[in-house]
Amino acid sequence: MELRYLTPLTPGEQRAHGLPEPQPLAMADRVRFSELDPLGHVNNKAYLDWFEAVRVRHFETMCLPHYGDTPAPRLLLRNASIHYMREMHRDESYIATARATSFRSSSYIVEQQLWSGGTLRARLEAVMVLMCPDGAGKQPIPDALRRVLVARDGATEAS
Amino acid sequence: MELRYLTPLTPGEQRAHGLPEPQPLAMADRVRFSELDPLGHVNNKAYLDWFEAVRVRHFETMCLPHYGDTPAPRLLLRNASIHYMREMHRDESYIATARATSFRSSSYIVEQQLWSGGTLRARLEAVMVLMCPDGAGKQPIPDALRRVLVARDGATEAS
Amino acid sequence: MELRYLTPLTPGEQRAHGLPEPQPLAMADRVRFSELDPLGHVNNKAYLDWFEAVRVRHFETMCLPHYGDTPAPRLLLRNASIHYMREMHRDESYIATARATSFRSSSYIVEQQLWSGGTLRARLEAVMVLMCPDGAGKQPIPDALRRVLVARDGATEAS
Amino acid sequence: MELRYLTPLTPGEQRAHGLPEPQPLAMADRVRFSELDPLGHVNNKAYLDWFEAVRVRHFETMCLPHYGDTPAPRLLLRNASIHYMREMHRDESYIATARATSFRSSSYIVEQQLWSGGTLRARLEAVMVLMCPDGAGKQPIPDALRRVLVARDGATEAS
Repeated sequence: MELRYLTPLTPGEQRAHGLPEPQPLAMADRVRFSELDPLGHVNNKAYLDWFEAVRVRHFETMCLPHYGDTPAPRLLLRNASIHYMREMHRDESYIATARATSFRSSSYIVEQQLWSGGTLRARLEAVMVLMCPDGAGKQPIPDALRRVLVARDGATEAS
Repeated sequence: MELRYLTPLTPGEQRAHGLPEPQPLAMADRVRFSELDPLGHVNNKAYLDWFEAVRVRHFETMCLPHYGDTPAPRLLLRNASIHYMREMHRDESYIATARATSFRSSSYIVEQQLWSGGTLRARLEAVMVLMCPDGAGKQPIPDALRRVLVARDGATEAS
Repeated sequence: MELRYLTPLTPGEQRAHGLPEPQPLAMADRVRFSELDPLGHVNNKAYLDWFEAVRVRHFETMCLPHYGDTPAPRLLLRNASIHYMREMHRDESYIATARATSFRSSSYIVEQQLWSGGTLRARLEAVMVLMCPDGAGKQPIPDALRRVLVARDGATEAS
Repeated sequence: MELRYLTPLTPGEQRAHGLPEPQPLAMADRVRFSELDPLGHVNNKAYLDWFEAVRVRHFETMCLPHYGDTPAPRLLLRNASIHYMREMHRDESYIATARATSFRSSSYIVEQQLWSGGTLRARLEAVMVLMCPDGAGKQPIPDALRRVLVARDGATEAS
């Protein structure tokens, strides 16, 4: 099956390209020349751009529509833990994913995976905090979105 | 016609997506979140990554195969002139191109265009110098490649 | 004479560090690990960040104060021509400069130099366009600033 | 006390600029225009460049000299956990630090802090793995360096 770039992949496509468990959002892209480090591997920072692109899209296209009349929050990255498992090389294609794994009243945790050639290359866990649009304080996650995070992403509510 | 990303586009595809004159190499990609500047437009530097990716691919897949037994040169960017015509925005798709327009004994000029939504957004002219693999001096362009640059890219030999 | 980083250098300091002609603005910095390319040289893009930092500072601290009651314009990079002369390496210190060389009613040209170890490594010529704060049209350069560009930077008025 | 940029700061300088506990390595730098995100804050990725510069220098100037005849290893970032505490803004100066907190036979943990204006803005914990120069396997930390990590950095040996 040909890999479609820059487009959300169906669960079937994700499985066909080596992801054992399909994720709510998964998109393919390819290593760029500008992302190589002095040793010819992808530099550590490039992964963060890749994960960011999918994480932002996960929020904007899959979470924000459940805000109803609530104004869109400002999204803040509070913590990021990245685990580099196996190096990426020039011209390799990859699939980056995003899934909310848990949430509190005004924050949630996103788990992200990077797959290439059927092997997991890196994982990121990010804590996202939802601020009021004016940045003045935190904004609670609307109930409608909480239900979606549980039902669609399999997220749990952290006490 | 759907836009295929990260793959050389056929002349027909190039025309269908708004390029009046098909180029020897044209590839589509899309603006990333990490490429936006403080004003919400694509930052000036991102264009250079996009052009670089296509320029390197033009050399490696369309020029290097004509080197025969000659060792692959080290490619050096000597000059770059970029003209920004119309701003790019978040999530816009674009097509970046490359074409050799002229060459001398050990250098060539690449003309690159950036198209989006049927309008030309930026142009780059780059002077590339071909160094010996050890960086010690310049390496002449093999005759076989010179013929290809003329026949395929429409390049002229500068005296 | 010790090199002071991230601070405008006096004409005497500029000369002591190898600049034959002192420029209106010159600031020193040092190559970062993250700026090295796959071959161990500074990547072409890093120079643009360096030049940008000095060019923005030149406008904001040396041009904007002459705006009086006129609202600050939005600065647009229209053209950039960069000439790479000699490669930069890891941990090298450099001095980047900025000088307005000419101007029209609502644009000006900045000439920028990059010096390291007494040799010129790169030159950039940038065409800057001054837009109204709302981006709706061009904004003329105030007379007070025009006089300063001539007297201080030695800029000429292009007809 | 004036802040010296791009130079290891003495314990006295570190205290004078707001670090309650001086670190083995601390260097000052300043936010660049190119590091601002669409909202006008420093983008999350820039912090990683800053930390990387100090982390690489910590290894190369403070660890590598204790390698004696052992060939220099290839340094691999295995894990990075970053905690963003308070946003950085345009033109702010900052001090980034590095200290080895623990080590195993062929890896060590670096704790890094980012200070600005007397407040802690971010913290990073990185797990570094030392590979043989050919990348074929792990390389043990020499005894001489182990002693230095304990005595100078206050690192503990993890069992």
